[in-house]
Amino acid sequence: MRNVTVIEAVRWTPDRSAVRIIDQRLLPERYEERDLRSLDDVCDAITTLAVRGAPAIGVAGAMGLAASLLAHVRDTNAEFRARLAANAERIRATRPTAVNLPWTLDRMLVRAPSSQLGNQRLLELLFDEATAILDEDRAMCRRIGEHGLALLHDGARVLTHCNAGALATAGIGTAMAPVYLAAERGWSIEVLADETRPLLQGSRLTAWELSRAGIPVRVIADGAAASMMARGLVDMVIVGADRIAANGDVANKIGSYGLAIAARHHGIPFYVAAPSSTLDRTLPNGGAIHVEQRHRDELARSFGTLTIPDGVPVENPAFDITPAELVTSIVTDQGVWRPPFNFMDSTLGIRYSGVVSAERQVPGAESRLV
Amino acid sequence: MRNVTVIEAVRWTPDRSAVRIIDQRLLPERYEERDLRSLDDVCDAITTLAVRGAPAIGVAGAMGLAASLLAHVRDTNAEFRARLAANAERIRATRPTAVNLPWTLDRMLVRAPSSQLGNQRLLELLFDEATAILDEDRAMCRRIGEHGLALLHDGARVLTHCNAGALATAGIGTAMAPVYLAAERGWSIEVLADETRPLLQGSRLTAWELSRAGIPVRVIADGAAASMMARGLVDMVIVGADRIAANGDVANKIGSYGLAIAARHHGIPFYVAAPSSTLDRTLPNGGAIHVEQRHRDELARSFGTLTIPDGVPVENPAFDITPAELVTSIVTDQGVWRPPFNFMDSTLGIRYSGVVSAERQVPGAESRLV
Repeated sequence: MRNVTVIEAVRWTPDRSAVRIIDQRLLPERYEERDLRSLDDVCDAITTLAVRGAPAIGVAGAMGLAASLLAHVRDTNAEFRARLAANAERIRATRPTAVNLPWTLDRMLVRAPSSQLGNQRLLELLFDEATAILDEDRAMCRRIGEHGLALLHDGARVLTHCNAGALATAGIGTAMAPVYLAAERGWSIEVLADETRPLLQGSRLTAWELSRAGIPVRVIADGAAASMMARGLVDMVIVGADRIAANGDVANKIGSYGLAIAARHHGIPFYVAAPSSTLDRTLPNGGAIHVEQRHRDELARSFGTLTIPDGVPVENPAFDITPAELVTSIVTDQGVWRPPFNFMDSTLGIRYSGVVSAERQVPGAESRLV
Repeated sequence: MRNVTVIEAVRWTPDRSAVRIIDQRLLPERYEERDLRSLDDVCDAITTLAVRGAPAIGVAGAMGLAASLLAHVRDTNAEFRARLAANAERIRATRPTAVNLPWTLDRMLVRAPSSQLGNQRLLELLFDEATAILDEDRAMCRRIGEHGLALLHDGARVLTHCNAGALATAGIGTAMAPVYLAAERGWSIEVLADETRPLLQGSRLTAWELSRAGIPVRVIADGAAASMMARGLVDMVIVGADRIAANGDVANKIGSYGLAIAARHHGIPFYVAAPSSTLDRTLPNGGAIHVEQRHRDELARSFGTLTIPDGVPVENPAFDITPAELVTSIVTDQGVWRPPFNFMDSTLGIRYSGVVSAERQVPGAESRLV
């Protein structure tokens, strides 16, 4: 086993009073950590993508909710509970597409039933729940990695899009988790990272965290992916997911859908790796997924430079929907799923009242596990 | 007819002593013209993409060759002729992929046979030839536009990549020529422009020249094109070409190939519009096209900002090859061509000794004209 050092994107400060994140807006130019204490700190960090990636947002949102209440422990119990609800709603509104954030916030809220608990005890419960969410996220990443390893081989050349690595989670990532574990085993793995316009999470973040871990990575323009496939330089595509519908349709960073089409055209597998909390059984298919439109300036004033003439409008969807028929396999912390996907009929999808663990797998569901 | 104002990317200075170009590196932030007089001016402008687009490079290279000799008219005839040859070779070496530049330079060189002409008379011939190349380029654009109009309709929504507009030629462009003519007829045409990483010719240039002409244009990230097609917002793709092989394989800006795959997946036509001088009969197919690798900093120091960590390598091909089977039609100044393309068997391809005009069409070849 080789020693692979993976960064920690979300954790508690040593005194457990605030959420410590790596400010991802500054990478790769500067490495800076930020401690999120107030509600504004938390919402601002999520809205401006200082912390990003559906799992990391979910963890940071839950931890941030607890942290934001610390200063209010001397309020009346009614005020404290009202603030808990209000803060949760403000945090929930920061990013509309990812499913993890409402899921972790709901987990926090069920800790505060209309019981007799005082503020101090309630706060302890909230910190405990947030810590459990953090630990489960780390364990979830490692399980995705273990299941995903079956799809890799020594020498594999993996193309990925955006950042579904350690920076997108509290652990070793989702799409990149199998890559980290393969590297840990001493396998030679090469990653091609799409730079991923408009925010360049691929070139700024995926390239940064992989090179820090000593894993060979090269960056390409998004438009170069198809020609890399045609030149025989790609063995597989692995991307993350922001939301997966019950039929296996996948919402992920804009550009994923085009990659899936190109992969199919070249007979290359297109894998999606994501926590089972990303499965949204309430959505029959991807058509029902609300796709967030992001600000014009992400395209028009790239890194402070005017790149689109004033007055010219843009279309800047944050995500696209890859239909299930273009997805070769979906890797979750519960296993590797092959089409036809039907997460509606299993009990394996997201449960809003708690974490779905591998132990709760339904007998018979294994037939769909690779 | 509506009045549509199209910019002029390459022309003579009023005294006809230098090549006046729009410095495309500064757009859309600043509009600045540059006058190219010396050999260094010309080579620098082409290498640094101050002037760009295969036809514009060809025209500017030929005009620049003439301009670069103006200061040397008092050399001996042997020196003058040696300088002509040497300057042509230096200009020829600036960009390896586009076919137009060697083609226009060869046209200039055949004006200087081993005759008795003195420097002054030879220089006049070279300026005349360069002016003819300029005028033919303008006429060529308009003919592409006229032929391409048959593929458009009032209300058409056209997706394009990179800049194959007026800024890429001395006239009204290649891929955008039908759009300009449609606008001139008062048709309502909407253009979606891929921003086109790494150099953003789509957002900086195509959006700029179309909006200046009053044609509705919206910019998208390259990765958003496939999802725009899935949402039913694209009626056709029209791109330019840097080189077209005899079998119809097309070398064009990196990203074109992925668009062609996505267009095919959605049943949307993928058109290539280019001057007939782009047809290279010496190449049986696209496999023989040399694809230029461009500098790491185009991806790594985007907009002056560090966007890839130091030490992480990139793959930055300038072009990709779209195989002929993904191309719906090729529009040239000679007509609209449909598959199976076989430019080898016709006399319609590029002729290094002169311009191929519509008048020289072979009887029978019309069977492939739409």
